[in-house]
Amino acid sequence: MSDTTGKATSGHQSTRSAIDRLLSPQSIVMIGASNKVANIGGHVFANLVRAFDGPVTPVTPRDEAVQGVAAYKSVLDLPDPVDLAVVAVPARHVPGALQECADRGVGGAAVITAGFAEAGEEGIALQNQMTDVVARTGLRVIGPNCMGFMNLWGGVMANFALPPTVPLPPPGPVALVSQSGGFGSYITTKAMLAGLKLGWFVSTGNESDVNIAAVLRYLVDRDETKVLMVFAETLRDPDVFIDAACRAAELDKPIVLLKAGRSDAAAKAAMSHTASIVGSADVLDAVCRQYGVFVVSTMEEMLDLGTIFQDGRRVTSRGVGIMTSSGGAGVLLADAASAQGLEVPEIPTDEQEAMMALMPEPFYGSLTNPVDTTAQVVAMPESFAKVLHAVGESRVVDMVAPVIWAVPGPQTDSVIEFYQGTDKPVALTSTAWLDELQVVGIPTYTDPHRAMHALGAVADLSLRTLEIVDRSAWQPNQERVTKARELLNRHAGHRSLLESTSKELLALYGIPVTQEVLVESPDEAVGAAEKIDGPVALKVMSYDLPHKTEYGAIRLGLRGADAVRTGFEEMLAEVATKAPDAARQGVLVQQMVPARFELTAGIHDDPVFGPTVVLGLGGILIEILSETAMLRPPFTFQTAQQALAGLLGGRLVEGGRGLSDTEQQAVAAIMVALGELALEVPEVTEVDVNPIRVADGAVCAADALVVVGQQS
Amino acid sequence: MSDTTGKATSGHQSTRSAIDRLLSPQSIVMIGASNKVANIGGHVFANLVRAFDGPVTPVTPRDEAVQGVAAYKSVLDLPDPVDLAVVAVPARHVPGALQECADRGVGGAAVITAGFAEAGEEGIALQNQMTDVVARTGLRVIGPNCMGFMNLWGGVMANFALPPTVPLPPPGPVALVSQSGGFGSYITTKAMLAGLKLGWFVSTGNESDVNIAAVLRYLVDRDETKVLMVFAETLRDPDVFIDAACRAAELDKPIVLLKAGRSDAAAKAAMSHTASIVGSADVLDAVCRQYGVFVVSTMEEMLDLGTIFQDGRRVTSRGVGIMTSSGGAGVLLADAASAQGLEVPEIPTDEQEAMMALMPEPFYGSLTNPVDTTAQVVAMPESFAKVLHAVGESRVVDMVAPVIWAVPGPQTDSVIEFYQGTDKPVALTSTAWLDELQVVGIPTYTDPHRAMHALGAVADLSLRTLEIVDRSAWQPNQERVTKARELLNRHAGHRSLLESTSKELLALYGIPVTQEVLVESPDEAVGAAEKIDGPVALKVMSYDLPHKTEYGAIRLGLRGADAVRTGFEEMLAEVATKAPDAARQGVLVQQMVPARFELTAGIHDDPVFGPTVVLGLGGILIEILSETAMLRPPFTFQTAQQALAGLLGGRLVEGGRGLSDTEQQAVAAIMVALGELALEVPEVTEVDVNPIRVADGAVCAADALVVVGQQS
Repeated sequence: MSDTTGKATSGHQSTRSAIDRLLSPQSIVMIGASNKVANIGGHVFANLVRAFDGPVTPVTPRDEAVQGVAAYKSVLDLPDPVDLAVVAVPARHVPGALQECADRGVGGAAVITAGFAEAGEEGIALQNQMTDVVARTGLRVIGPNCMGFMNLWGGVMANFALPPTVPLPPPGPVALVSQSGGFGSYITTKAMLAGLKLGWFVSTGNESDVNIAAVLRYLVDRDETKVLMVFAETLRDPDVFIDAACRAAELDKPIVLLKAGRSDAAAKAAMSHTASIVGSADVLDAVCRQYGVFVVSTMEEMLDLGTIFQDGRRVTSRGVGIMTSSGGAGVLLADAASAQGLEVPEIPTDEQEAMMALMPEPFYGSLTNPVDTTAQVVAMPESFAKVLHAVGESRVVDMVAPVIWAVPGPQTDSVIEFYQGTDKPVALTSTAWLDELQVVGIPTYTDPHRAMHALGAVADLSLRTLEIVDRSAWQPNQERVTKARELLNRHAGHRSLLESTSKELLALYGIPVTQEVLVESPDEAVGAAEKIDGPVALKVMSYDLPHKTEYGAIRLGLRGADAVRTGFEEMLAEVATKAPDAARQGVLVQQMVPARFELTAGIHDDPVFGPTVVLGLGGILIEILSETAMLRPPFTFQTAQQALAGLLGGRLVEGGRGLSDTEQQAVAAIMVALGELALEVPEVTEVDVNPIRVADGAVCAADALVVVGQQS
Repeated sequence: MSDTTGKATSGHQSTRSAIDRLLSPQSIVMIGASNKVANIGGHVFANLVRAFDGPVTPVTPRDEAVQGVAAYKSVLDLPDPVDLAVVAVPARHVPGALQECADRGVGGAAVITAGFAEAGEEGIALQNQMTDVVARTGLRVIGPNCMGFMNLWGGVMANFALPPTVPLPPPGPVALVSQSGGFGSYITTKAMLAGLKLGWFVSTGNESDVNIAAVLRYLVDRDETKVLMVFAETLRDPDVFIDAACRAAELDKPIVLLKAGRSDAAAKAAMSHTASIVGSADVLDAVCRQYGVFVVSTMEEMLDLGTIFQDGRRVTSRGVGIMTSSGGAGVLLADAASAQGLEVPEIPTDEQEAMMALMPEPFYGSLTNPVDTTAQVVAMPESFAKVLHAVGESRVVDMVAPVIWAVPGPQTDSVIEFYQGTDKPVALTSTAWLDELQVVGIPTYTDPHRAMHALGAVADLSLRTLEIVDRSAWQPNQERVTKARELLNRHAGHRSLLESTSKELLALYGIPVTQEVLVESPDEAVGAAEKIDGPVALKVMSYDLPHKTEYGAIRLGLRGADAVRTGFEEMLAEVATKAPDAARQGVLVQQMVPARFELTAGIHDDPVFGPTVVLGLGGILIEILSETAMLRPPFTFQTAQQALAGLLGGRLVEGGRGLSDTEQQAVAAIMVALGELALEVPEVTEVDVNPIRVADGAVCAADALVVVGQQS
């Protein structure tokens, strides 16, 4: 058991946090323990007793002893304070039981009982009573409506995820946190088959108190935990989640997240079964990317990554060595490597020659990489082992992907011996999982693409450059904030600001905007137009006319004094006819800027993660191409550049007609500026800069809308 | 055994095709049979003998008898003609052995030996000798460098994919065709674990004669074959492949294709191990979509689809009923259903009420769909069975997706009983495969997304509308062909036609082009401009100036006689300076058309599939968005519309700012016209219409380039 956190081994409850006592207890009481092992109360108690070294005390009104252990009628009767209470009594008795736990000095409770917020009004009321106890007493609570938790390092089987008859695996470096107990148990079962070594499985259920983020934050600091897997339906505490992600990145411990409830149908199902509120899946993905969390699409992908991460191996290049006796498998693996951005470098000639000496004569395979030994070598176990070593030891290879048929024998033995002797990551493609391999912990995949997906993740983890900015350490520019607030105050009383005001605010943050002047008369317009290069646009500024085009409140491409004057007069006449009651704050005389293409940028207020900076293609394409880059402020210029480079598979920044280096930097600077604006002036709840016109190395905001919420 | 093709049961060789005699033989000889079962010659012979009902005769120079069967020294010594010769002698002896087979009236040969085109110059020469024998004699040959084939319906185990000691499974409805023998055997092994019932596995290796397409074309007509799975590295005979796909669509037999060699690294590997030439993966995908072939990305996806297709069940709606005891699994399944375009319809109230009567009291699950029984019901096997029936029989449910833990017992029995009593497709999510389930053939998936992917494919297969046009029945419009050829003849001598000529050709095919007139003088230009609405463009037409902009050979947005005249003169002066030697074919006075956005369309000549019509976003975006719709002519207007609707996830035709109905029809008409042009005038090898300007219900080709190849 680890003691670096000073938690698990400390005997003094007073020095330990309540969540530590809850999850790493030294004494346990079970309220609702039963002699019937077929019931949940009996099942969980049997699990607790079989695994835990310390005292496990049953509480039940019914029996004098439970499964041979003397029982108490109430937790209040316990002679000593206890760290963890496991609660499996009918829902209506739960709030009272928790109050008694608090009164008796229990650290925390795991409430397995269902029938709370997921079960209609009566259940909601009961759950509210639970949260009242938590708020009043400081007792920490996991659940209700969960499957409890498993802490194999501490011998705590406070769950019914596994029957008491199934042998417990030895503790491993992987921690699984799942809102859903049932699916968490499904994953646990699958993980054991796949050779994934779990140390923890915590299900959080309705999350009346402790949620996924809190559990993650607790587990990430524990030495024995090296990999964290999360199955979430909602994220209730985004700041703690991000804090956990930052700490995980700092400690080089990967977090793998599977998020359910992405579609409407699924969100509805999630709400019905754990009373969850579901946020935007796109924003979640973006935040995870920003803070280094691996988001997967399927459960098997989660297990696949957990499996490759658990031995903690890392790489310094993206070069993978493929070894197979089937050329077809080699081709598929090379395909899959390419799809993951991995390289299949040619084995150097001298190394190939050394391998050739091991090959049968004549040899019809290939030793370049993929190394295709052909079926000839399958019957030559010694050569197989030597070639595997040669591929693994190649100076151009940083990861190894062998292929075998799942048949115990000399080939399997060679793979085991090779894996144990190397520190390079190995992803084995095999027709099936094989006990011999999984006991040793060799990451094994039943499909070539899954093997390469796993190696790709190791490369991503090893070679990534995360620049995480600590939000609490971030300092606003007070001078700029003062100016921005002055500007907003001058235009107070309107939630949607005028284009002219919006762009003044953007300009204050250094965002390039069109040259423009707000004027009252035709003469002023002509004077303003003369100072602007090229043709101008005229736009009526009016809080009453957010959609200018339909009222004729816009003129484009005017050149020369006559055109400007005529345009001004005709425009006002048209507006006077079409919108006679509209008040007018002036006419904007605006530079027209060229565009090779258009982008859009803005601030979007996500219900879960708060203000987020969004960048996408602009103009008409904003609807046709829904893909955007999103960043949660604060973030660095480099992070903005990376996000931009990741958009549309990188094609926006590649090739002759995409964004040039200068243009990329200008766009990244706009993203950083919008992030600063969002943090410094939180009353700005929405910004929409559309289009940003891009041409000849320059970018320019041609139109913009700022929306102000309640001023704080 | 099936006899509808009149092949497998016919005793008269003269009435049977050579490929039928090869793959469904009634007598077999093995050249290179050996007494050493560890050798390939002994391994294959043992396999042949154990499975085949008819005579299997060994040929070997070494022994009097092989594995107890009297042997011959040469195939020439055989007393009777034989259908199939299996050849496993050293490469240098193979051409001679094949000649002897032909001389003795053998139908065809499966050559397992390696060391041919994949193995350098000497091997290439040997393979050429083999193809000479084929060309001269009509003997059909599978291989060389393959693993042979397995025809379980005919008892032909002409392969070393399975050891003679592994019991043979009963024949099933799925046929696997794989270029790679090794990976085919890997798939065969995995398929048997997954409960996929194979009837055929044919490996084609170097494809010196019979290739994947030919095998598919043979197997698709066989009654016992209901599903075809293909692992291909290259497609050597696209017309036969398409013919097989058309026949499969006609017979409602799905083909599932896994294509290797998509990336450069993989293509290199493929070329080295079976000497394959690899075509464009994008065109292959498009052709498969057009002809109803399911393209998958991974081997496990191929098996997943094979598994769901093998019971032949179909649906009439996309509604799926999800039943689980884990709410979390339900949410993931609903997510996955949505990702596959499936619906999770709410179970009608009366049906929910009937289910509620089976539930424990209090019940904390949900019966809407996903039906979440919670873990309460796991302990109530009778209720589990009844709810499963109720979900399956719901009038809104056309497919059923239950979830179980892979534990033999009453739940598993219920699933078996339910599956056998319904004709709705069932995709079971289970922690693992289970013999009980796989023997019965219940499609079983270890991940929720894989289960839904399979059901999505069944829905796609059941509900698709394929309008396949038979190329051989397609009739050209002779009058139009004559006019097109006259036009091309008038401009003969240049491979790249002028814009003006290119658009004349397009106009002949009914494609809307800009109004434009080719003129010689400023006066003519002014006269032409007067007849065109709005501003005009001037473009110098010159074979010497394909890139007009850099020579100043273009003027845009000219309004009025003065502007046109001045523009004309200035332009010619600039060209005279910048390209003094350029000959000039005239100046094009061209209408300028508005654009809400731009598309591009064209004809691309694929090295494998020939001329293909391509449609994508135009202008600058053609590079940033590489996604295009591609169709192989001939195709119908409706097929073009479907392809357009499938582009960019459907967003191009949806929402307020995408293509309107009228615009979609106009674009589809352009695609059809380009397809007709490609077929009618094959000397037109490339067409690039870019941009097609789209606005206000109209589309118009604003620029175009036609390239003419060698005239036939």
